[in-house]
Amino acid sequence: MTEKNKRGLLVVVSGFSGAGKGTLIRELLRQYPNYRLSVSATTRAPRAGEEDGKDYFFVSRERFEEMIAGHKLIEYASYVGNYYGTPRDYVEEMLTAGNDVILEIEIQGALKVKDIFPEAVFVFVAPPDAETLEQRLTGRGTESREQVLARLKRAAEESRWMPDYDYLLVNDDLSETVARLRALLESQHLSMRRHRAFAEEIRAALNRFYLKEEK
Amino acid sequence: MTEKNKRGLLVVVSGFSGAGKGTLIRELLRQYPNYRLSVSATTRAPRAGEEDGKDYFFVSRERFEEMIAGHKLIEYASYVGNYYGTPRDYVEEMLTAGNDVILEIEIQGALKVKDIFPEAVFVFVAPPDAETLEQRLTGRGTESREQVLARLKRAAEESRWMPDYDYLLVNDDLSETVARLRALLESQHLSMRRHRAFAEEIRAALNRFYLKEEK
Repeated sequence: MTEKNKRGLLVVVSGFSGAGKGTLIRELLRQYPNYRLSVSATTRAPRAGEEDGKDYFFVSRERFEEMIAGHKLIEYASYVGNYYGTPRDYVEEMLTAGNDVILEIEIQGALKVKDIFPEAVFVFVAPPDAETLEQRLTGRGTESREQVLARLKRAAEESRWMPDYDYLLVNDDLSETVARLRALLESQHLSMRRHRAFAEEIRAALNRFYLKEEK
Repeated sequence: MTEKNKRGLLVVVSGFSGAGKGTLIRELLRQYPNYRLSVSATTRAPRAGEEDGKDYFFVSRERFEEMIAGHKLIEYASYVGNYYGTPRDYVEEMLTAGNDVILEIEIQGALKVKDIFPEAVFVFVAPPDAETLEQRLTGRGTESREQVLARLKRAAEESRWMPDYDYLLVNDDLSETVARLRALLESQHLSMRRHRAFAEEIRAALNRFYLKEEK
């Protein structure tokens, strides 16, 4: 279908730590390279193998604070003494060029995106149930019981905001969940609000037809 | 994905005469027999081969008027001296049993459905452009030029209501359009408003986890 509205779709993906949203998005991008993942800006130093402009935009603290002051960030937060944020221009450019852009962000940041991009689609990724989340977090084997419980507590707090999202993706099976996410994103292109111009054009063209021939 | 909300989805499909929505829905039902097409009630006599309860519910004028008076119809209209309407109980029963129900109805009737079933999904089927519609209507060879122009005029009037629909399906290629409609309907099952119970359950379960172990 030719889309009259060429602007890309902005997709915000959030979810509990351990719900598997990182893996899900990586697999979506591998299967469908047409999607663009937003690249965050950060003040932390690059780790081995990380590329500027691909993994992150690595910027100085001074530059980051200029971006904050100049409203150049859609959302930002500070973790362990470093800033992380979503550059607005980069997302805007990709959307204008017609690319669908995925933002993988924390729930608090996600809700700020709604103010700036009310047309964005909000997707929440959840495990099938709390037990599965607990098992996944425990199974990583990298965290103490206290850390696992802290993550579960945070998930419980975050779950309060689930109703603010448009869609729920229960990540029970990776390949099925990728397929559902893909179908969901493609369906969003059919949204009538993206096709106001089409509706007006066809109306005008239909009117021309019968006005031309009617006595 | 196990859907906690077992109620089926109500899907209202409208579109211009000649847009191919009948063929589209038939093909969808052939490929995915899990969908249910709402059966209309009518006072007109059955034609050869038509089955009561399958093609229509054939009822007397008296019975139909009782249904109107008893608010048993979601919408109804009168054409060429006969009543046609959508029985409410039949749709309600199928939705309650967890079936997705498709209503193929005229635009005016469709907007009435919104009052009764605000959670319904509204899909508008359109041709790629006005020229294609004119060619399809002319190509049927069954109608005079005046009749074709009358249909185009009606389509122009109906196009006014397109923005009231949730999604636009441009029917450019039957099999692609069926696939898009299928993806759209499956995606609607992911809608957060269908999963409020899931959000509450997982929240309660997460709370139990850390409350149990926290000092």
